[in-house]
Amino acid sequence: MEQNGRLPENSSDLKGDAPDATDFANYFCTYAFLFHQKEMLEDHKRTGAYYTAIMQNQAQFKDKVVLDVGAGSGILAIFAAQAGARKVYAVEATDVAKHARKLVQHNRLGSIISVIQGTIETVELPEKVDLIVSEWMGYFLLRESMLDSVLVARDKFLKPGGALYPSHARLYVAPIRSNLTHSRQNEFRNAMEGWASFTDDMQRYYGVRMDCLNDSFRDEQKQYYQQTAAWADVSPNQLAGRPWCFKQYDLLTVTPQEIIDSFKEHFELQIIEAAPIEAFAGFFDVQFKGSPENPASFEVLLSTAPDPQCSTHWGQQVFHLYPPINAQPGDRISGDINISRKKENHRLMQVVFQHCIIPRQQQPQAATPKLQSTERVDFFSIE
Amino acid sequence: MEQNGRLPENSSDLKGDAPDATDFANYFCTYAFLFHQKEMLEDHKRTGAYYTAIMQNQAQFKDKVVLDVGAGSGILAIFAAQAGARKVYAVEATDVAKHARKLVQHNRLGSIISVIQGTIETVELPEKVDLIVSEWMGYFLLRESMLDSVLVARDKFLKPGGALYPSHARLYVAPIRSNLTHSRQNEFRNAMEGWASFTDDMQRYYGVRMDCLNDSFRDEQKQYYQQTAAWADVSPNQLAGRPWCFKQYDLLTVTPQEIIDSFKEHFELQIIEAAPIEAFAGFFDVQFKGSPENPASFEVLLSTAPDPQCSTHWGQQVFHLYPPINAQPGDRISGDINISRKKENHRLMQVVFQHCIIPRQQQPQAATPKLQSTERVDFFSIE
Repeated sequence: MEQNGRLPENSSDLKGDAPDATDFANYFCTYAFLFHQKEMLEDHKRTGAYYTAIMQNQAQFKDKVVLDVGAGSGILAIFAAQAGARKVYAVEATDVAKHARKLVQHNRLGSIISVIQGTIETVELPEKVDLIVSEWMGYFLLRESMLDSVLVARDKFLKPGGALYPSHARLYVAPIRSNLTHSRQNEFRNAMEGWASFTDDMQRYYGVRMDCLNDSFRDEQKQYYQQTAAWADVSPNQLAGRPWCFKQYDLLTVTPQEIIDSFKEHFELQIIEAAPIEAFAGFFDVQFKGSPENPASFEVLLSTAPDPQCSTHWGQQVFHLYPPINAQPGDRISGDINISRKKENHRLMQVVFQHCIIPRQQQPQAATPKLQSTERVDFFSIE
Repeated sequence: MEQNGRLPENSSDLKGDAPDATDFANYFCTYAFLFHQKEMLEDHKRTGAYYTAIMQNQAQFKDKVVLDVGAGSGILAIFAAQAGARKVYAVEATDVAKHARKLVQHNRLGSIISVIQGTIETVELPEKVDLIVSEWMGYFLLRESMLDSVLVARDKFLKPGGALYPSHARLYVAPIRSNLTHSRQNEFRNAMEGWASFTDDMQRYYGVRMDCLNDSFRDEQKQYYQQTAAWADVSPNQLAGRPWCFKQYDLLTVTPQEIIDSFKEHFELQIIEAAPIEAFAGFFDVQFKGSPENPASFEVLLSTAPDPQCSTHWGQQVFHLYPPINAQPGDRISGDINISRKKENHRLMQVVFQHCIIPRQQQPQAATPKLQSTERVDFFSIE
């Protein structure tokens, strides 16, 4: 099937299947555009972190076999080849694979990199790999559920002792101030006023009474304006307290089931600045540490935390709170975050916060830390 | 199965299947929101035209059996019941059917209207119908390809001599001036400049040469900025000549194959105002004339032509021309329009204009009316 670890480009042995049509319509389709690839590539905090993680660890890549999962333009595969990999398999499901193939040839890496168009779930490789590189992170880390595919790749193709780049991921939540909370609330109010005059018109013009749908319309708009997380580039000035890390993943050992199942984690947010807490901000970081058997010589961190110098295309996910929480410096917001996948579309998420304020003066004495009066539950989806 | 032509609500005999999952993701999903239903309903030129067409033709609806295809909120079914229909079947594929059911009950029409959730292709009705009402028109009439379903309904359920509301449809093209042509051209140029500095950065930061993708990126951006029709609410002031009707459909006799097949039609645009022709505007109208056996007493026209008083949510589809056509008053733009469905998604369209200018002074003498020098072809998709 192959000689010297090299395979001819376009070898029919190395083709996978296209994504399922519905998943393509919902998800993969946007990634086929160069415009979108450019947007990701020119996020230099992202691309630079991968570049550094790979190029500063050339000892780990030298003469190794590498797999790039969801390769897109093939940039990580090219970095791996630049770092001295013997062979790189770049697996990409969409037609952007064709661009990746061009790029590989143009950069004279065709003898090292094989671009394979197909989903990782359906691809077969002629050998196991030493390293998996992948940029699989979605909003709030888990949106898109692409980590599923990375774990499939790990379990199918990674040699014992092999490493993933990145190797670890962490999820954070932080209390913030946000003017948008107020303006979204106004938009919601306007939408409801618009509905009221609309139903009046329908009755007046056509004799049709539509008020029986008031509650349904309110629910729909509430979900849109109040219960959908919003993308934002949060300024560190908006932070009203330190971020709390509520979840850590070791990507080498986490099971596929663990990331499919919904989970609940505790958080404690110490309030430092006096202000109504208008939202929670959710974000993540990933670490490039190699594996226990093949640790990185140079560890790299890619963080999507609020950063005054340099934001990422992920920004943060902001969960606006209606009404805001009246917390004072020294208070704590204590609660649980519950994360699950949406039933209708496994690439989208449902996030529920169940929390209460623990006032500063009460903390030392409090035997039961939860105050019934401030207990609340906030529901969100990440679309 | 039934008594007195009435069926219990939620009868299991009257259920259809949900849409195919991919078609749902691509198309049906947006229609499930009340917000979107509201947007269509408060287009009073649209809703008012249907109201008038039904209420001014009560003689045609009195004691009749009516089918509403793609009923949405059920408004047309309600109009039909208000006009005296004996029985109305309102078929709707999405969950908005649940709202329609509520609306029907709330307006005390539950004994007349049965809301059936399912696609028309999979629904069975207990009887044939006298009339079909449907608001199936997409941008430039044919986008969404929902007429397919109306013709399925016609061929499955309409009694001989029955009528469709609307009964006829026409497609138009007109030469217009548009500032947007220039600004979209600028955006395209900016996008290409952005790409140039991006590829410079990629080379400088990461040693990756991406210039081999210049042409692909240009093609992609060209398609986006120059070859995709844009929604616009065109002012009649922008018209540089009279609209030309290039296609007429009698919905009672048109075959399903005729609307599936791509077609080519001739057009002649007489230029009246001196200006570069920066775009073609495409739009449609539908007529409510009943059928030969059951003609409407009062004919109604719903037009989406540029209108200073009252626009519709359809607006017009604008096909920006790069470069604009330098035509003078008295010149004619003569050509063919070719319309087909997109291969990847049958609900989207491909429109090709093949045309040339016939200068005024040349028209009387011209034996062969086409001037080779001005012949051009412009490609567009309607997304």
